[in-house]
Amino acid sequence: MQLGVIGLGRMGQIVVNRVLDAGHDVVAFDLSEEAVATAADAGAEPASSIEDLMNRLGDEKRIWLMVPAGEAVDATLDELDPHLDGQDVVVDGGNSYFEESVRRAEATEAAYLDCGTSGGPAGAELGFSLMIGGPEWAYEELTPVFDAVATGPDGHDRMGPAGSGHYVKMVHNGVEYALMQAYGEGFELLANGRYDLDLEAVSRTWNNGAVIRSWLLELCEEAFREEGNDLGDVADHVAGGSTGTWTVQEALEQEVSVPLIYQALAERFDSRNEGRFSRRLANRLRYGFGRHEVVREE
Amino acid sequence: MQLGVIGLGRMGQIVVNRVLDAGHDVVAFDLSEEAVATAADAGAEPASSIEDLMNRLGDEKRIWLMVPAGEAVDATLDELDPHLDGQDVVVDGGNSYFEESVRRAEATEAAYLDCGTSGGPAGAELGFSLMIGGPEWAYEELTPVFDAVATGPDGHDRMGPAGSGHYVKMVHNGVEYALMQAYGEGFELLANGRYDLDLEAVSRTWNNGAVIRSWLLELCEEAFREEGNDLGDVADHVAGGSTGTWTVQEALEQEVSVPLIYQALAERFDSRNEGRFSRRLANRLRYGFGRHEVVREE
Amino acid sequence: MQLGVIGLGRMGQIVVNRVLDAGHDVVAFDLSEEAVATAADAGAEPASSIEDLMNRLGDEKRIWLMVPAGEAVDATLDELDPHLDGQDVVVDGGNSYFEESVRRAEATEAAYLDCGTSGGPAGAELGFSLMIGGPEWAYEELTPVFDAVATGPDGHDRMGPAGSGHYVKMVHNGVEYALMQAYGEGFELLANGRYDLDLEAVSRTWNNGAVIRSWLLELCEEAFREEGNDLGDVADHVAGGSTGTWTVQEALEQEVSVPLIYQALAERFDSRNEGRFSRRLANRLRYGFGRHEVVREE
Amino acid sequence: MQLGVIGLGRMGQIVVNRVLDAGHDVVAFDLSEEAVATAADAGAEPASSIEDLMNRLGDEKRIWLMVPAGEAVDATLDELDPHLDGQDVVVDGGNSYFEESVRRAEATEAAYLDCGTSGGPAGAELGFSLMIGGPEWAYEELTPVFDAVATGPDGHDRMGPAGSGHYVKMVHNGVEYALMQAYGEGFELLANGRYDLDLEAVSRTWNNGAVIRSWLLELCEEAFREEGNDLGDVADHVAGGSTGTWTVQEALEQEVSVPLIYQALAERFDSRNEGRFSRRLANRLRYGFGRHEVVREE
Repeated sequence: MQLGVIGLGRMGQIVVNRVLDAGHDVVAFDLSEEAVATAADAGAEPASSIEDLMNRLGDEKRIWLMVPAGEAVDATLDELDPHLDGQDVVVDGGNSYFEESVRRAEATEAAYLDCGTSGGPAGAELGFSLMIGGPEWAYEELTPVFDAVATGPDGHDRMGPAGSGHYVKMVHNGVEYALMQAYGEGFELLANGRYDLDLEAVSRTWNNGAVIRSWLLELCEEAFREEGNDLGDVADHVAGGSTGTWTVQEALEQEVSVPLIYQALAERFDSRNEGRFSRRLANRLRYGFGRHEVVREE
Repeated sequence: MQLGVIGLGRMGQIVVNRVLDAGHDVVAFDLSEEAVATAADAGAEPASSIEDLMNRLGDEKRIWLMVPAGEAVDATLDELDPHLDGQDVVVDGGNSYFEESVRRAEATEAAYLDCGTSGGPAGAELGFSLMIGGPEWAYEELTPVFDAVATGPDGHDRMGPAGSGHYVKMVHNGVEYALMQAYGEGFELLANGRYDLDLEAVSRTWNNGAVIRSWLLELCEEAFREEGNDLGDVADHVAGGSTGTWTVQEALEQEVSVPLIYQALAERFDSRNEGRFSRRLANRLRYGFGRHEVVREE
Repeated sequence: MQLGVIGLGRMGQIVVNRVLDAGHDVVAFDLSEEAVATAADAGAEPASSIEDLMNRLGDEKRIWLMVPAGEAVDATLDELDPHLDGQDVVVDGGNSYFEESVRRAEATEAAYLDCGTSGGPAGAELGFSLMIGGPEWAYEELTPVFDAVATGPDGHDRMGPAGSGHYVKMVHNGVEYALMQAYGEGFELLANGRYDLDLEAVSRTWNNGAVIRSWLLELCEEAFREEGNDLGDVADHVAGGSTGTWTVQEALEQEVSVPLIYQALAERFDSRNEGRFSRRLANRLRYGFGRHEVVREE
Repeated sequence: MQLGVIGLGRMGQIVVNRVLDAGHDVVAFDLSEEAVATAADAGAEPASSIEDLMNRLGDEKRIWLMVPAGEAVDATLDELDPHLDGQDVVVDGGNSYFEESVRRAEATEAAYLDCGTSGGPAGAELGFSLMIGGPEWAYEELTPVFDAVATGPDGHDRMGPAGSGHYVKMVHNGVEYALMQAYGEGFELLANGRYDLDLEAVSRTWNNGAVIRSWLLELCEEAFREEGNDLGDVADHVAGGSTGTWTVQEALEQEVSVPLIYQALAERFDSRNEGRFSRRLANRLRYGFGRHEVVREE
């Protein structure tokens, strides 16, 4: 199979390599010539523009987009659109909001597959988990490519119609926030508790047979090994949050309560919010009703 | 009626004054001679020791303790005990843990009334809310004093047997934590929201007729008036927490979930916990699975 | 002053009565002839249609809408619009979403005041709390009417430009949810705790001088008096939730964490969600890792 | 090495089998003769009483207790104690509260190892994760046994002095509650969301390469496969909770906030609490301030 890959950042290069390794052909394009050269070194056919890439693909074009979610996807689709017809398949492997994927699927002539991709850089060797939404025939047509990019046949599946891939990925990330915070609470308690513990040893012991073993817990083990038992100079500042916010917004719409996911997201907000106003007011109110001394900033 | 008052801090002096104003007699003692002198100026009969105070009281002794919760109560009771018999009544008006009140009630010969006291310094003029536990006859015997110290007859009631007064006060404080945090969240959102608002004006408007009007909201209004719209140099540091902790512990024992009270307490802990470990770990884990840059302390 | 009132439900009639009582003139219209007759009995001039109402108002029209939030507001504005110019003032006293108020203010020729109204039926006697957004001149022009409808001059204020009135009302309601849940947690613990308590007596004692006294707590007292100590047949089902949902959504946008407001809203969702899926899964997972017996529905 | 095993329930039998498989000798006792016979069939030397078991062990006795946490441990230790001296080692492999383990370690003459055991029945084949507290020499002495019972050398470690093994296990379980609820929230949202999803397929796809892959997620996959996409007749009722309660209590003592662990525990309480009082009160209060109809039980 011949696959066009547009967007050759870290994740895009992994897609290229895994698809090549599985014996398929890749035509690769990126705005960065250096990135195209890297893909070419790996064995891909380089394209000098989107138009050039499209010309190098056959009649039934299969194209994988690995560009940042948001405007870059629309800009790329605008350029692709004149070249696409109903026999073509476009995969968006980025982290797009599911409603935008629904909109894009409706707007394009091609079959559109929204593909939530999880696994991070570790996926280079292990392969990814791919959650895919869109027309069944297109999903089946691309199965050889998905087999290559995913951990294998069990690492990808069609979730349902347009948008469902990115929808399931959105919820995946909401759960991810909560898992991270859950482990964090446990280790925070151990770090402040009654015993002087080696948290790397705790993680390793848990990872070998305990109910809570997981890949995230392996990453905790790695973090303590590399940063030290007190996490060294790692700051109390958690960036990101868009997929978690989307998850909570969707849960509000569906009237499903997700207190753990919400609170995990709130911890991120708090980590970036110096001097929480609500607590400053509580500090002052304690003076109001109890004449407790107000703690002032120095 | 003649009342002995032991413990003449801010709250004790208010008790003395309100009981005197209602036409009763007060014998007053405190370890601080200055505090005794203040009470004497207000019209109380000064006592030079607990023994002296007991000698000045008649056969049926009525004694109000307004000493700090904890060891001071036990130390005072140890001194009182040899002078007490079953006709006497001791009121603990402090913020004792209810199980200690049950224990003390069992240990003393006298009738023991545990009296949760709420209202703070504003109670000097308005009177307090008194939640009282212990024998019914003792509660009725002391009613004239409770009428004087409370806002009036509706401002005090017998909750039930020994410990129930401090139990209800404990839960009162748990609710208080949650109310403070609830207002705080609202004002934090307004302070960071879409409009440039005058929070004192918001509070005042709410206090005049809105569903959420309350005494705590009047204290919010006062806080914004006195500290400014951004609360000036009031720090993000909320002291205290023991009654909230007791409330959550009791709720755990009863298997009643109290998520708002818990979270309000957690905000206090967080306000005193620099660099939450759980969030530092989340920061690092995001690198682990996504190669997101770790934010480091400078 | 002459005021047109459109929408004569319970709240609209209260507005009519309070404005009449303050010595102003009212022209009243509602789709229900019966409602118009009630207003006429109270002293208002009845109108047979919106057009009729507009004809009865002078050159500088002042109109108060008290119709259900949503489509009814737009439908009414569509009818009003041809009759309005820049000297006229329209007040929306309903519970509209603030962004819709901004949109409406931009769309109409008239000055548009969005007016958050709190206080419920009790406002008939006491007056309401009014949070008002829109042009300053219009707010000042309507001040006599606001004085009449509110508890008095302190019961209304201009929060800021268009939308700010409904914005502050939205946050008010978010706080309201949290306060209700906070009291509820306290009473739930008392109802399941160590003592056999009279919750009406607890509420009354708290309402007289305690830190947590409030109007909502007076309503708790009333609820226990009227429904009994165990709330009788009052169901575990809390309707509503739109303003709380808006508050949380806005807090997500502003990245302000509001854990108590969120959790209070989640309790409403849960009260309407039979058999929470997350807990059913936890029940099953305990079998998976520990062979704990799965609890099955009968 | 020769090991005495007391307590031959499901977990105790697994210990016996794994220790025998590793080539060690086992003397086994249980109050149930049938359980002893099962162990004997597997190759253990049967004991007819604790005294008999002690007589069959050599001078340096190594004993593994696998009896239910609580009174059974103390009762067993009472019988063991006359036979123990400072060269002997007792392992408590159950789920005891860490403070009781500290107390027991102090009370016995023998070296006492508290051993938190995680992994459930799946540990029969894979081995367990063992978190061990107590004297270093005793831990090293028992290492061959721990190697056999655990997944291997990485599946056990000495956490620190007496109590630390059960302490780490307690926190493990707190985290476990939160992880289960986190996955549950995600699947609840998916089950009520915009798409008609096959949750077994979602779980399988996630388990193959996604960031949130874990053993618990494998158990989710199994649950959907065995119970169906809607979990069939699995009830909304989560039993248990003691280790989660201990975790939250300890976090309160250490003033560490654990909102996710708390809320996961609260969900269990709620699942067993028909008709949450707080929500019934909220239902009624909405009538109080807004005349919203009270929902009544039928």
